Amino acid sequence: MDNFEFRIIKKDKNSNARVGVIKTPHGEVSTPIFMPVGTQASVKTLSSEDLKEIRAEMILGNTYHLYLRPGHQLVEKAGGLHKFMSWDRPILTDSGGFQVFSLNSLTKTSEEGVRFQSHLDGSYHLFTPEKVIEVQHALGADIIMVLDEPVLYPCSLEQAERANKLTLNWAERCRQAHKELEDKDFKHTQALFGIIQGSTYPELRKNSAEALVKLDFPGYAIGGLSLGEPKSTTFEMVDLCVSYIPEEKPRYLMGVGTPKDMVEAICLGIDMFDCVLPTRNARNASLFTRFGKLIIKNSEYADDFSPIDPECGCSVCRNYSRAYLRHLFNTGEISALRLATIHSLYFYMDLMRMAKEAILSGNFLEWKNDFLKKYQSNQKEERNNVGNN
Amino acid sequence: MDNFEFRIIKKDKNSNARVGVIKTPHGEVSTPIFMPVGTQASVKTLSSEDLKEIRAEMILGNTYHLYLRPGHQLVEKAGGLHKFMSWDRPILTDSGGFQVFSLNSLTKTSEEGVRFQSHLDGSYHLFTPEKVIEVQHALGADIIMVLDEPVLYPCSLEQAERANKLTLNWAERCRQAHKELEDKDFKHTQALFGIIQGSTYPELRKNSAEALVKLDFPGYAIGGLSLGEPKSTTFEMVDLCVSYIPEEKPRYLMGVGTPKDMVEAICLGIDMFDCVLPTRNARNASLFTRFGKLIIKNSEYADDFSPIDPECGCSVCRNYSRAYLRHLFNTGEISALRLATIHSLYFYMDLMRMAKEAILSGNFLEWKNDFLKKYQSNQKEERNNVGNN
Repeated sequence: MDNFEFRIIKKDKNSNARVGVIKTPHGEVSTPIFMPVGTQASVKTLSSEDLKEIRAEMILGNTYHLYLRPGHQLVEKAGGLHKFMSWDRPILTDSGGFQVFSLNSLTKTSEEGVRFQSHLDGSYHLFTPEKVIEVQHALGADIIMVLDEPVLYPCSLEQAERANKLTLNWAERCRQAHKELEDKDFKHTQALFGIIQGSTYPELRKNSAEALVKLDFPGYAIGGLSLGEPKSTTFEMVDLCVSYIPEEKPRYLMGVGTPKDMVEAICLGIDMFDCVLPTRNARNASLFTRFGKLIIKNSEYADDFSPIDPECGCSVCRNYSRAYLRHLFNTGEISALRLATIHSLYFYMDLMRMAKEAILSGNFLEWKNDFLKKYQSNQKEERNNVGNN
Repeated sequence: MDNFEFRIIKKDKNSNARVGVIKTPHGEVSTPIFMPVGTQASVKTLSSEDLKEIRAEMILGNTYHLYLRPGHQLVEKAGGLHKFMSWDRPILTDSGGFQVFSLNSLTKTSEEGVRFQSHLDGSYHLFTPEKVIEVQHALGADIIMVLDEPVLYPCSLEQAERANKLTLNWAERCRQAHKELEDKDFKHTQALFGIIQGSTYPELRKNSAEALVKLDFPGYAIGGLSLGEPKSTTFEMVDLCVSYIPEEKPRYLMGVGTPKDMVEAICLGIDMFDCVLPTRNARNASLFTRFGKLIIKNSEYADDFSPIDPECGCSVCRNYSRAYLRHLFNTGEISALRLATIHSLYFYMDLMRMAKEAILSGNFLEWKNDFLKKYQSNQKEERNNVGNN
């Protein structure tokens, strides 16, 4: 793990929030960090130049999708995912487990691994812990993830227990496979993270975290949350998991989330996030702003020549009006999707920047309170204006 | 016309090719020029920043589309088309005539104007010469066009004659309406161009050109070509029309064309072009290069990590491979459409730059010959490789 390092720069006195730096072979990134999701070697609608312009530091690639198309061997032949997509900053790849289960109704899980049919052509495939490590080595991301068996919510204790056992067994095998491949290739350029599961059962979360910590991964993810459970449960589980992860290791809350959820999770000590929300919502004309969500297709914006978010410094807010963006959406122009994505991702980056600044200046809780007040007050207003958003 | 000026910088000794400069209220542009088509206040898939990056100098807007959506009054309220779409360089708007006839099967033309139903909602509208001038004044482009009645190909002599008469009558009314509005508003910021019609009948083209020249427009377009007539006829008509347009006026060949056609037309003395070909083809994965067309979805490019056109300096060729662009198209990523558009429009801009340089260095015919040889030799190769393109 010569090439991977996590340093804590500052800890907040009044919460678990912290600012850190992750060092990778493709440069350093600061935490808390939000990673835009680049499913198929591309953050939807954006180029790598766009990602730099919005100041993205690290992005996420999906092992499942890249394995199926264009194939990990092709990406390896291109010189790895960084070269293939022309992105020279850090990348994290997930293990593909979540997509296998969420995109396929027919999967067969055994001790060996998970058998599934491609959602593209129905072809049969097997993901074993060893296989997903092999694929992720070919892709060459800076941070890679173990294969896990996610469970849905709600989930019985027995089911969650069985999944936990399997996930832990797979984590060990992933660790072993990763070590062997690294030693064989004389390269130690990828950090493998473990994933804590356990549904909403505190005891299982504890067991999962403790067992994984014994395996000494360079970083830990918390998986299986934000699947429909009550928010209070989400944060209870996050808080619990964080308490078992050694302080000096980065903590990654997978698939979260909304600006509000991320701010709460930062407060609990989370360092890393990824979510399709800002990009997917943007393509559906729903934008994130300091004042809550803004549904740009609403008729009230037809002749509103102000920027999406007057306090935003992104290129879209600097150059275009709400009226223009609304026109592009209404006429079906593809550029609307890209401009909306640029704005919302820039806002997410800005949110991380603001949180970091607040932690560094020692006023995180105050900032958090102000941010949420402004963000939610307008959420209500928005709701009043446009019905149920 | 205080704000409009056309200066010839250099005339080729061995052909009618020339290099010029058009001065407009939004800056100067050099000719020969290709204007990307920004139908709905947006060049499809691109932002205004993208257009600057590909070095576009002047773009085209469609009066018909903007009149229907978002409406010319809204654009006027935004401060005009330049402000609305955040483009501070010159814009040309067409009169909408061509779209009225090509997008509507049921139009009713009379001396008064043309009645049509919106292709969007079936609502009824009337475009008179006075109306299209009013709309174009509201849009505020630097160059605006007269209303004409385009004819299809083939077209009987009688039909073409009747259309010509109407077009001439409308041109006079447009000129009058334009003068009145300009004087009323104390602004002389828009140059109105006449459009020479006459189908493929030399006598009608001559009559049309001579009558329009008498009205002394600041520039002349040649309309109604590239509609399916033989290429030799196209260029015969272009050559004929050019011979009747005063040398000191800019000549605009509407809706043309392919790289080959533009090079031939420059040779005959054409200064301005517009066409949806580079943008539309790009969205269909067909790219323009110095070596002819390249169908990026072809399997031969699956593991081709070279740039689209090794001699191209665009951001796409500098950063991405054929294999990556093919992957984006194959996985349905929207960014594929934008990257392909950036490349092909950059190539069109480059083509104009190369032609200008050749004219300025006095070796236009030699360059033209070399360019076409390279461009067409590979067209054949391309054809051999991929079937009928």
